[in-house]
Amino acid sequence: MSRPDEGFHVFDTTLRDGAQREGITLTVADKLTIARHLDDFGVGYIEGGWPGANPRDTEFFSRAASELKLRHAQLVAFGATRRAGAKAEEDPQVAALLASGAPVVTLVAKSHDRHVELALRTTLEENLAMVRDTVAYLREQGRRVFVDCEHFFDGYKADPEYAKAVVRAAHEAGAEVVVLCDTNGGMLPAQVQAVVGVVLGDTGARLGIHAQDDTGCAVANTLAAVDGGATHVQCTANGYGERVGNANLFPVVAALELKYGRRVLPDGCLAEMTRISHAIAEVVNLAPSTHQPYVGVSAFAHKAGLHASAIKVDPDLYQHITPELVGNSMRMLVSDMAGRASVELKGKELGYDLSADRDLLGRVVARVKERENEGYTYEAADASFELLLREEVNGRPERYFTVESWRAIVEDRPDGTHANEATVKLWAKGERIVATAEGNGPVNALDKALRVALERIYPQLARMELVDYKVRILEGRHGTESVTRVLAETTDGQGEWSTVGVGTNVIAASWQALDDAYTYGLVRAGVRPAK
Amino acid sequence: MSRPDEGFHVFDTTLRDGAQREGITLTVADKLTIARHLDDFGVGYIEGGWPGANPRDTEFFSRAASELKLRHAQLVAFGATRRAGAKAEEDPQVAALLASGAPVVTLVAKSHDRHVELALRTTLEENLAMVRDTVAYLREQGRRVFVDCEHFFDGYKADPEYAKAVVRAAHEAGAEVVVLCDTNGGMLPAQVQAVVGVVLGDTGARLGIHAQDDTGCAVANTLAAVDGGATHVQCTANGYGERVGNANLFPVVAALELKYGRRVLPDGCLAEMTRISHAIAEVVNLAPSTHQPYVGVSAFAHKAGLHASAIKVDPDLYQHITPELVGNSMRMLVSDMAGRASVELKGKELGYDLSADRDLLGRVVARVKERENEGYTYEAADASFELLLREEVNGRPERYFTVESWRAIVEDRPDGTHANEATVKLWAKGERIVATAEGNGPVNALDKALRVALERIYPQLARMELVDYKVRILEGRHGTESVTRVLAETTDGQGEWSTVGVGTNVIAASWQALDDAYTYGLVRAGVRPAK
Repeated sequence: MSRPDEGFHVFDTTLRDGAQREGITLTVADKLTIARHLDDFGVGYIEGGWPGANPRDTEFFSRAASELKLRHAQLVAFGATRRAGAKAEEDPQVAALLASGAPVVTLVAKSHDRHVELALRTTLEENLAMVRDTVAYLREQGRRVFVDCEHFFDGYKADPEYAKAVVRAAHEAGAEVVVLCDTNGGMLPAQVQAVVGVVLGDTGARLGIHAQDDTGCAVANTLAAVDGGATHVQCTANGYGERVGNANLFPVVAALELKYGRRVLPDGCLAEMTRISHAIAEVVNLAPSTHQPYVGVSAFAHKAGLHASAIKVDPDLYQHITPELVGNSMRMLVSDMAGRASVELKGKELGYDLSADRDLLGRVVARVKERENEGYTYEAADASFELLLREEVNGRPERYFTVESWRAIVEDRPDGTHANEATVKLWAKGERIVATAEGNGPVNALDKALRVALERIYPQLARMELVDYKVRILEGRHGTESVTRVLAETTDGQGEWSTVGVGTNVIAASWQALDDAYTYGLVRAGVRPAK
Repeated sequence: MSRPDEGFHVFDTTLRDGAQREGITLTVADKLTIARHLDDFGVGYIEGGWPGANPRDTEFFSRAASELKLRHAQLVAFGATRRAGAKAEEDPQVAALLASGAPVVTLVAKSHDRHVELALRTTLEENLAMVRDTVAYLREQGRRVFVDCEHFFDGYKADPEYAKAVVRAAHEAGAEVVVLCDTNGGMLPAQVQAVVGVVLGDTGARLGIHAQDDTGCAVANTLAAVDGGATHVQCTANGYGERVGNANLFPVVAALELKYGRRVLPDGCLAEMTRISHAIAEVVNLAPSTHQPYVGVSAFAHKAGLHASAIKVDPDLYQHITPELVGNSMRMLVSDMAGRASVELKGKELGYDLSADRDLLGRVVARVKERENEGYTYEAADASFELLLREEVNGRPERYFTVESWRAIVEDRPDGTHANEATVKLWAKGERIVATAEGNGPVNALDKALRVALERIYPQLARMELVDYKVRILEGRHGTESVTRVLAETTDGQGEWSTVGVGTNVIAASWQALDDAYTYGLVRAGVRPAK
């Protein structure tokens, strides 16, 4: 596989700075899933969090060591320079960085004189010593070190000599990259390019850029820094981040690859961009932005009409790139959510070659479009998509059981306790089975009732476990009928798979996702369907 | 009133190009309302549509003539150059531009050789004649004329001499401004600035910029064109437009006013920006983007507890502009990193001065931390936070009713239909009430049952409506008890508020969020609590 330019770093901080976005709260499992997506996308560095700052980030690094098998990325731990007046080797926060086991550490350092005085409450000289000592100590311990100069651009305006002194201190102590941060996000591209150029010339340090989007220019500011000589870009998936957000990883990488002609991702990764953007949105439980550059469902949507014939003759006259390069596709119809290219790509990924049979591909695309119109999404529900695909390939659905009816009851009792009870009536292998179970919630009770009903006939179900589910209400403002979408994640101890259910209420949608989850689990286990 | 620089045009095309956004359909009344908002914001030009192209745009101009009283803006009609081989004075489309009564006309012209051949199907020379004739004719008829050079930047790459010839033709025929359009949106700022500079030098025409956002750089591209010498910027409110969208009016104007120090709006208008952005979003029936630069509700929201104490000392260290300049305000998010400083600031925002009572502040912080450990989040649930705060301030919870028990049943019947039924038993004003209702889901059924039970005693509830809810399952891996968190949004037609509920299942968590939602609604309505 062809490798990208090693002299250029694509550094992702979704798991650390991106998680600052209002409304995002990530579990450790979420973080591991996102890290896998980012690695699939081919970023060089994944900043996982601040070990020691909170138990969740500490746990992430410890689980990452055993559970994450990264193909492209290096894991990065984020932390601060040592405390004022203390030794780096005695600082527990610095020790936590080493204990994380991450091969790379990003240290945040103050580079704005007023912030040193007001937030750190120490002297300018001591701040430089803090940078030098901490970088040198971590280098001695065998870590690669990047230094984030927080509030760099504002600091540079206030006192350029001091701001540059911090860059020099980090560089001379052995930091591999010094990252200039527009922490308050107030910069514009021309200024960023000029400052990066001067700092590069004056310090000789390898420079990176970290831009916040408060002027709406974070992508442009990141590219302007590259124009100025930066060779390390810090971004977040979908631009998640504090306030307005961070520089969006996807348009930055797309511009570097497609507009600059610069190889920054491994071969084949750019075409995964749309899928990965949407999958990460599902994990953080935010609707993917329909109007996001390159990856939004509207990004290559054209109103047919005046130019339709010209578009047919030469589509490149009406699009700035070929959408398939980023895994997206041109759309001529408003309601059509799925393109042949992405379905073909997804099929290929699952081991089904759909390119040979254009009819089959057409049927699958039509089914996906129809279902997505109803509220389904297959971006983050590969197992449900594979079941749909198998149904079209085999000409019949996988069916291990046939449900007659089910019922769930949730009761809040006067003593404050809850009762959750579910009953399932179904047929499997010619037998009618009725089963009832209690659970800690209605979905859990349904899940248990379904297993009670089926485990004797399909003992493979005993290994399977529902590990996560996410609920989103679609539409439904001001009295219109809302639709509920559930994404469920199931494991058999060997791997995990995701399924989707849609319905007018959360229980009905969950039931569908459960049905798919166990059906897929049985397919996966190699069990033959039987009525 | 001080006037802005007359030599600089802020040109809005929300009503024409913005309306191309997927999902936006504007009535004539919508267009008139938006035009009033844009005029309040102080833009110089409002492009209202294409008269003659569709009956709605024709009607807009005819109603605008009598109904719109513009204080700042001039109305602009959009249209195309005459047809190939015909006379401008005989072209019905050109006649419709005159009939619109708009004092200014924007003519779209082709400036890319391939587009002339493929889409217009005429010669390059005839295209130049079409530009010259149409501009000259409209000038003779007393109209001011701007010319939009469609696909200019792509055309310039393909054949710079021809692209410039179109600019010259328009300029020499009397066009006041020639607008260079990045119609496919593939440009980056450095290229835009360079091309604008060359075209300005070579043609001497007054230049404008029209940027689409396909690279995520439309705002930066617009500013880069200004850096290159453009003195006319075409934008849309909230960046609405085809595909990804257009250059967003608000960050462009804010950058010009606050970063460039250029007066482009009348006095006092910039402070209306947040209100106007949200009002236009309501008219087009799209939720205002929470993360939009300058005007989003998150644009000045701070989460990190670490910085809260420094923010108290000097907020300007942590924001790129004073949010009040654009009509926005700083918000402190109460998150699990919450310290005393951020809770104190949050309290202040809600109108509670906690600085005087250190004990009270300590109790609130402790309660928040304890609840957030259980899975609550207050950063997106201001109303639940305020109820918690009031409970600590008043020494007792707000209580309008006391619940004895409730029950929800979801049943999937053999015929595929669902039944959702809920029963609530509660006490209010000394009375025991039992109510049952059906809904489209279990939460909807509970919501209805609760209203049925309470509406006679609290008629204010009739105005309230649950408009959205989000569900999140927290942790719960490998057999550990999972926790469900629900965020509910409720409206009384005047405003909206958010509440949070946490429980071992989705129904119980939803119930809590509902309880808080209606309790807060009654507090908000000024109803006195009563057992």
